[in-house]
Amino acid sequence: MLDTNTTIVTTPVSVRLRRSPFWPRSHAAGGHNYTSYNHTLIAADFKSPEEDYRHLKSAVQLWDVGCERQIELRGPDAKRLAQAATPRDLDKMADDQCFYIPTVDAKGGMTNDPVLIKVDEDHYWVSIADSDLILFFKGVAAAMRLDVCVDEADVWPLGIQGPKAAELARRVWGDDVMNIRFFRHKRMDVNGVPMLLARSGYSTQGGFELYFEGRVGASALWDQLMAMGSDLDVQAGSPCQSERVESGMLSYLSDITPDMTPFEAGLGKFCEMTRDVGCLGWRALREGQEPMRQIRPIEISGGPLPPMREFWRVVSELGEPVGRISSACRAWSYDCNAAIGLIGRSHWQPGTKCTVETSDGPRSAIVRERFWNR
Amino acid sequence: MLDTNTTIVTTPVSVRLRRSPFWPRSHAAGGHNYTSYNHTLIAADFKSPEEDYRHLKSAVQLWDVGCERQIELRGPDAKRLAQAATPRDLDKMADDQCFYIPTVDAKGGMTNDPVLIKVDEDHYWVSIADSDLILFFKGVAAAMRLDVCVDEADVWPLGIQGPKAAELARRVWGDDVMNIRFFRHKRMDVNGVPMLLARSGYSTQGGFELYFEGRVGASALWDQLMAMGSDLDVQAGSPCQSERVESGMLSYLSDITPDMTPFEAGLGKFCEMTRDVGCLGWRALREGQEPMRQIRPIEISGGPLPPMREFWRVVSELGEPVGRISSACRAWSYDCNAAIGLIGRSHWQPGTKCTVETSDGPRSAIVRERFWNR
Repeated sequence: MLDTNTTIVTTPVSVRLRRSPFWPRSHAAGGHNYTSYNHTLIAADFKSPEEDYRHLKSAVQLWDVGCERQIELRGPDAKRLAQAATPRDLDKMADDQCFYIPTVDAKGGMTNDPVLIKVDEDHYWVSIADSDLILFFKGVAAAMRLDVCVDEADVWPLGIQGPKAAELARRVWGDDVMNIRFFRHKRMDVNGVPMLLARSGYSTQGGFELYFEGRVGASALWDQLMAMGSDLDVQAGSPCQSERVESGMLSYLSDITPDMTPFEAGLGKFCEMTRDVGCLGWRALREGQEPMRQIRPIEISGGPLPPMREFWRVVSELGEPVGRISSACRAWSYDCNAAIGLIGRSHWQPGTKCTVETSDGPRSAIVRERFWNR
Repeated sequence: MLDTNTTIVTTPVSVRLRRSPFWPRSHAAGGHNYTSYNHTLIAADFKSPEEDYRHLKSAVQLWDVGCERQIELRGPDAKRLAQAATPRDLDKMADDQCFYIPTVDAKGGMTNDPVLIKVDEDHYWVSIADSDLILFFKGVAAAMRLDVCVDEADVWPLGIQGPKAAELARRVWGDDVMNIRFFRHKRMDVNGVPMLLARSGYSTQGGFELYFEGRVGASALWDQLMAMGSDLDVQAGSPCQSERVESGMLSYLSDITPDMTPFEAGLGKFCEMTRDVGCLGWRALREGQEPMRQIRPIEISGGPLPPMREFWRVVSELGEPVGRISSACRAWSYDCNAAIGLIGRSHWQPGTKCTVETSDGPRSAIVRERFWNR
């Protein structure tokens, strides 16, 4: 049932909604307002949205982000298959690099925006946003008769995020973690098992993602991190809507929809357009390098906004529709409303004034030069 | 948060959770306990599970099953693309037929179990269960450079289900509906717009699915059906877990998982194995026609069962694991517990006794010859 302000539904837990090995600890720590992401539960909130936000920006949090499922590509054609799905040039990927890759279909429409990780020679993980991208890989591999296994790996990321994340990781895994550069990874000893630790994560507060393998030892590791970080005020958390929106971190199926190209999503810098790298959408993308609409940071005036249940229309000062807002939230650090808009070329210049038709009525708004945390 | 008996979570409604054009009416009629299915909300309950079940089996219900999204395949290679995904022989499909098709990957693992509808020459809809099967089609089409458009259609099924569904449909669309045979379809005039009406649906109580196109007029149609069926006791409803389990109707991602073949799911009769019809998984399937485990109807003893949050293990009388239960519920009409099990060959004979390890403890159980409603 939707609650009285019609923003919450109740969902029966079933075998269709998977739970990660970190779920019992994360849930016991107060996780609530769950959503289904890659057929897996993820909590939206722990304390209040504002408390979770301020804590993330001042301390360190453990995130059960097991819903970032890992597609495993393994075999001689693993790289070729990964390249078929993305215009980013994988020849430029270092062995220890985490590559953010827009993935596209034959029309250049975005199918996901995962992080590609090279685990080993001929062995990759694709850490996905919320779509069954595995089916694209399976389709391509079958049609091209590629020599590659495509499976979901039994790997469940644990986020360690916040300004004190590096200190916590250093205490647990030693000074070596300080040598992992941004979007690079290294194998660490996790209670006797070597696992990938990456300097990455879905916040701009700094931190790590541990690609936890299997289910055994997850609670013990959680407890260990909590104990070793107690004086750092480590707490359970999860990706923070306000922090990611003010930082301009996009969310697939909210800000990025399948009808958008990487250029429209502002991800053109990840597209190699000077040569065909083997991406099946390359020809279509080549025609679409000058998009008519693009993601822009939008500041919406006034006090806190109502929750978003659907896209809000953006209209010009003359009342014409010029775009949509796909994410909006209170940016408490900046005492304003931060939003992500998809705006037409005629109105996307920084400083352009517009009106956002929120579910509570119109608000004046302005196109900004850049997101807040950048 | 999970409720006290840990079976319900609360979910914030966001732009990521779509709502069909019938959602406002369905929700106002008491829809609750929503789940996300193909990134779309669907209600599990209206009154109590038992009331909804008994009403479905005695009257007629309107179901907002817009979450059965339609993948549109359009162009000269549409049929070839559909055939690449399934071992069912599409040459045998009549123009007005709805074809239940297991879809598989190159290893024969099930990717979905949709209904294929021929809308027109070179124009199909694939009415999907809960996976982004569109990405498989996009991958195959791109890799094989097929001449076909693959899109999600703006079509939202409305179910009209129950023993009085035919009478309600007859009143609204005339005697013509009585000539639509099971799993066949016909274009009907829906307030001035021709739309496909199929004799099908996710129950064994009889009924129709209307493939409603666009969003305009959905509430008016709902109101019209409610008004014309008031003396038939028409009510809002949704797919009924107890009714579909006792009938042996499988649910993708519960009973059918991606590691299963159609033969394991008991869907061998839908697989053309005497010749390669063009299915990319055909070679693998040919090797797997004698599965070591298969779906079986299981009766679990005792009173009502606890809700299922994860698979329950099935063990033999000697205590060895021999399978899993993927769905279980009270079959009130039969005053017993009906369940769907995946059982090893050594223990799948009808009459075999076993033990199901429910979340509330072990229960004795027996393998049945057939499901209850069949």
